[in-house]
Parts: sequence; structure tokens; C-alpha cells
Amino acid sequence: MPASPIRKLVPFADNAKKNGIKVFHLNIGQPDIKTPEIVIDAIKNINLNLIAYSPSQGYESYRNKLAIYYQNNQIDIEANDIMVTTGGSEALSIAIGSIADPDDEIIIPEPFYANYNGFAKQNAVNVVPIHSSIDNNFALPPIAEFEKLITPKTKAILYSNPGNPTGYVYSKDEISQLRDLALKYDIYIIADEVYREFIYGDTTHHSILHEEGMENHAIIIDSVSKRYSMCGARIGTFITKNKELMQVAMKFAQARLSPPTLGQIASEAAIETPKSYFEEVINEYKDRRDTLVAKLKEIEGVKVAEPKGAFYIIAELPVDNTDKFAQWLLEEFNDNNETVMVAPASGFYSTKGQGTRQIRMAYVLKKENLIRSAELLKLAIDQYGKV
Amino acid sequence: MPASPIRKLVPFADNAKKNGIKVFHLNIGQPDIKTPEIVIDAIKNINLNLIAYSPSQGYESYRNKLAIYYQNNQIDIEANDIMVTTGGSEALSIAIGSIADPDDEIIIPEPFYANYNGFAKQNAVNVVPIHSSIDNNFALPPIAEFEKLITPKTKAILYSNPGNPTGYVYSKDEISQLRDLALKYDIYIIADEVYREFIYGDTTHHSILHEEGMENHAIIIDSVSKRYSMCGARIGTFITKNKELMQVAMKFAQARLSPPTLGQIASEAAIETPKSYFEEVINEYKDRRDTLVAKLKEIEGVKVAEPKGAFYIIAELPVDNTDKFAQWLLEEFNDNNETVMVAPASGFYSTKGQGTRQIRMAYVLKKENLIRSAELLKLAIDQYGKV
Repeated sequence: MPASPIRKLVPFADNAKKNGIKVFHLNIGQPDIKTPEIVIDAIKNINLNLIAYSPSQGYESYRNKLAIYYQNNQIDIEANDIMVTTGGSEALSIAIGSIADPDDEIIIPEPFYANYNGFAKQNAVNVVPIHSSIDNNFALPPIAEFEKLITPKTKAILYSNPGNPTGYVYSKDEISQLRDLALKYDIYIIADEVYREFIYGDTTHHSILHEEGMENHAIIIDSVSKRYSMCGARIGTFITKNKELMQVAMKFAQARLSPPTLGQIASEAAIETPKSYFEEVINEYKDRRDTLVAKLKEIEGVKVAEPKGAFYIIAELPVDNTDKFAQWLLEEFNDNNETVMVAPASGFYSTKGQGTRQIRMAYVLKKENLIRSAELLKLAIDQYGKV
Repeated sequence: MPASPIRKLVPFADNAKKNGIKVFHLNIGQPDIKTPEIVIDAIKNINLNLIAYSPSQGYESYRNKLAIYYQNNQIDIEANDIMVTTGGSEALSIAIGSIADPDDEIIIPEPFYANYNGFAKQNAVNVVPIHSSIDNNFALPPIAEFEKLITPKTKAILYSNPGNPTGYVYSKDEISQLRDLALKYDIYIIADEVYREFIYGDTTHHSILHEEGMENHAIIIDSVSKRYSMCGARIGTFITKNKELMQVAMKFAQARLSPPTLGQIASEAAIETPKSYFEEVINEYKDRRDTLVAKLKEIEGVKVAEPKGAFYIIAELPVDNTDKFAQWLLEEFNDNNETVMVAPASGFYSTKGQGTRQIRMAYVLKKENLIRSAELLKLAIDQYGKV
């Protein structure tokens, strides 16, 4: 198992805090946004005297409401196309386990969410990376490049859209190209759409299930974690219209018995979250993105991939190695007893040597903290020494 | 992935219910016992406005209290020897993934908790079964039989104690023999101790960590699910004093980010459950066990393994095949529009052809329902036709 680039520096951060240093956490996508009140109220008003298992597939009442949510997003699925999982994490792990045998391959545009590596490893499946570049904001690599990588062992292409860690939002055209490829080679598209709602500006989200003919070839990974700022509920969804695949996935679901009951009650309540909540949240993130991008661009030698969605930015820094630099930020650097924690981007690449000068930042903090974080980064780069 | 013997007949049960048949569920260990009030109160009084991730290892406050719980049970562990997991299920999956590579082997006395198979399969690890017999209540097989099965690929011996599905409670002597074996061959003992508190009569529980010298060779799997009747919280624990192993396990934990936050809050409250709750519960289960065992013994041709702990009974029936029989109970049989659902035991064996005349029953229902269930079983056997 590879170590998580998001969490592996935690001991150094803990140490810094013990030494009285304030650490701005841009390393992890834990938003500071409040969970909708309707969710907290549902928990407080819980009407249970026995916290029992739910069905392995999740509560039917919840799946019914989820189906309506997707239909409202023009995604044509029914309650039985949905399996409730323990976070998007488990949905991913089950997806990979259900479609691939040990030694099979999954193609993933890199940089990608580092835990994809972990879930593949757990299932003894090999990740085949395909390079996307900071120079075009991590757009989809040319389809011809994908075709070069397809072998009889290729079972799927996996991507997140909007992208974590890239913030890129795939266009309808890019998704359509992937659809054609999947149908041509009879492989799956696993679309991690957990950031569906987090899109800034005019771009709209194009789901893999907006494409026609993908009934047997598409898997959507989803989660309540970011949408309703309730990461700790650990509720996600595995979605497919492929009945046979759902049956295989159900065996994995039965082995772990049931997704969390309390989290499901909270998530079912979350479906009724008023539109105004999202409008506020999206405005807040848009503002944060604009702020952080602008501040980063002011730092000499820093290259930024401008994100259109999610709440991550990849930046290339004028330092020798961001693994060393990120640790140094916690171990050696502070300004007025403050420092910043970022995720070294090498862990988001599976090709060795890639991303070693990049970092991922999550803009999940208030604007003033982001401004201060960028300032700290600037001071730190100067002190660490530019290359 | 193999199908769960506990859940695979659910569609037939659903159908029976649609046809107006009342189904007594002895197939699954979902107790009807209420969750302690202190737990429900903690949920209702939750003081959060953001349901955030917890640390991957679980909340420190919870792990501190857990350490005291174990110390009170003369199990010498500290907070840092504990990782909080999403149910005992995840603890098992992480344990297997952390100690074994694909194609490695784990020896398990059969019959065993069917999902062990699933977790091994997920990790591409092979289960090597060792036969234990209904004729001596499924006591530990002779150590010489274990030794015959040990190869360079053997990474661990896994057992549950008290046993699910057997109800057997391993003696101090049996556990000591396993300890000696583990140290001799430098392999792990994975002790699933989730039923620790459920022991009836004079027998006491002997944990693998009551044995000396097991610091680097023991893993305990635990869970709040049955102890506090809160299966749906999905909170378990992975315990080891082996620091290196804990570091590997932490990588798995980081990949799935965090165990459920709400379940942890509920579980932390559960630690304060008054003793009187357990006394009542244990008395209730003892009474149920005595009732069901007595009633089953009255049925001609039925052989019962007398359980000393947990809340399961394996019985051998005078029918040709319990997979067919259990399905027939749901599809064809009823008495006054009532029938009973049991788990065919073949799914608890990994050796083909074993357990095909056995069933597992969970005595998780009220006494009068157990009496009626045994009566239904008797009528059903007569009608189905004895062999």
C-alpha cells in the first residue's frame, strides 16, 4: 500500500502544533462549511431505540430519494441502480473489485486522486497512468494516447470530474470521446462525480450517464461528503445500470454487511437541503478560488492550473522537490508562528518522477486564511531557496 | 466473491412476506435487544455543526476510553495499539490485507464466519480450512493437524472466539497451544473477539492478548455491533501491539480516509453503558439458548452443537440438503402463514460438500418466537421428508 500524500505528513503537522505553530491546512479536502441544519436536526430528532444493520444495498427510502435527485440532474437511474456505500471510498473499492481480477489494468489520467492507487492495490489491480499536463489545465489527453495503452487486461478508464486534484471539468465532447472508446473496446468508464455540484462559471457538469448507450459500461461514484459538507457521515453511492455488475457488487456489499445506519439517516435528510444552501456554498468557493489563484499567480515562478470545479488547485513551485519542501514547511519554517500544510503532488502521479515540483492545495478555508496561506508560501519559497 | 449464506436467501424471504407469510429471522445476527439508552441520548444531544472526517485511526478520545475498557478486561493495550474501523468487517479486511500478499494463505477452523471468505477473496488471499467437528461441539482441532497445513505461504491462523457460527468458546489451553504454534512458525494469530461478552455459564473468555509474548504476533478484531446492540453504527477495532504492522494497517485506513464520525460518537458513549445492561442481556441470551437447544433436541434426528457463547447454534438436520431446505422453507412451506428463515451451513465451510446437512440459527429473537421457530422447523422437516 502506498502512503496517502494527503495524510502522510500529519505527524509533522502534529509536532509543529505541539511547538505552538499554527498550521493552515490546505492539504486535505475537509471543508469548513457547515453541514445543512436540516441534517443536524435529523440526527437530533432520531427516532430509534435500536441501531440496526440496514440492508446491504442501503435503505430503500434513501435510494428512492437519491433516484429523484439524479433524475433532477437529468441522470436517468432508478433506486435499484443505486447501492449505498461507506463513502465514495468504498464505492471505488467495490467498483474496482467487481470489474477486475488480480493483475488486470485500469487506465487513469494522472495526476489523480491518490487513493485510487490504494484501492487498486487492495484489489491487486494495476494502475496504468496516462499523462495530462498542467500546461492545458489537465484537459483530457488525446484519445489516441488512450488507445495505445489498451490491452486485453484493460478493464476500465477511471477519472474524476470535476477533477481532484486538478479542478478540471471535462466537456461534453471529452466525455463523448471516452464513451466511444469504452464501447469500441468493451471496457468500463468509472466516473467519480462526487464534485458534481462544485462548478464555477458557465461550465455545466456532463455525467457519463448523460451519454447514450452506456447502460452496461458506466459506473458512477458519488458521495454526500463534499456536497453537504458531511465527510464524516461516510455515505457514498455506487451506481450502474448494468444488472449483472450490480449483482457482483452486491456480494462485496453483503460481505461488509451494511453501510452506516446513522449516516444514512443524515444523508436522507440532506436530500431536502434548500437550493439557497448550495448557492451560498458555490459563491463562497468561487470567491476562494479566485482569491487563491490570484494570490498564487503573484508569486514569482509559480505556475497555476486554473480550476473550473471541485476545490483543489495544482501549482508548480520553483523549488527542487515538493515532498521535501512540504515537510520542511512543517519542520523548519514559520512566520510569526504560522505555517501552511500542502499535499506534495508526486503522490497524485503514478509515474515516478512526475509532479515532484507540484503541490495540491484545497481551498477549503476562509478567504483571509487563504490569503495568509499564499503569503506564507511566498515567504517560504524565498527562504527555502528557488531553483 | 462468494455469496453470503446469511443474506443470499433474502429475495425469497421478501417474496414470502409479500405473500402474507410471517418469517422468523434466525438467519442473521441482528439482535432485537435495544441499544443502551446512553447511546441514543448521545446521538440526540450531538453538539456539532459540521460532520467532519475523524482521524484515520479514529478519535483519540474514543481510543483512550477503549484502552481502559480493554485494561479492565486484563488486556494490556494502549490507545495507540487501537485503530477504529468501519465495523469488525473492515478490521478483518485490513488485517488480512496488511499481513498477506496475493496468493498467501490463512488457516481457519471451519465452519467459520462466512464473510472471512469474502475478505480473503478481496485480498486475493487463499483460505486453508481445517475441520472442526459438531461431535465435540467444534473444539479446536489438534495442533498436529494445523502443523500439517503450514507452508511458507501461511501468514496467519484466524478464528472467532466465542465462535460464530459454532458458539464454541476456546479454553485457555487451546489458546495457549495456538500461541506456541504462532511463535514457532512466526505467523500471526487473528482473533475475532467480537462476542467476548457473550459467554454463558462458568466459562470465562481467554483473549489472545492474555497470552505472553504475543506482542508481535497477535491481532484482535473487535466491534461494538453486538456488544451494545448497535450493528448499524459500523464501528469496529483493529488491535495490535506490533508497531510495524500498525503502520501498514494505517495506510489502508488512510486510503478510506476515516471511520464513521456519528458511529464513533455513539460508540464512545456506549463505553459508559452500565453493568446492569449486560447482566440483563446475557441472562436473556442464556435463556434463549437454553430454550432453543432444548426444543431442537426434541426434534427426532436433529443433532445440536451446544453453544457456550455468542448467539448462534449449528444443528444437523435429517434432510438431504439444507441449501435446498432453507429455500424451500421460504418458497413452499408455511404453517398458519408462518415460516422460519435459517442460514444453510455449507456457506460457513470452505471445503466443498461439508455442512450440507447443517444450518446456523441465531437466537436473537424473543423466547416465544424461538419456541415457535423450533416448532415450525419440526413441522417443516416432517413435511419436507427425512432422509
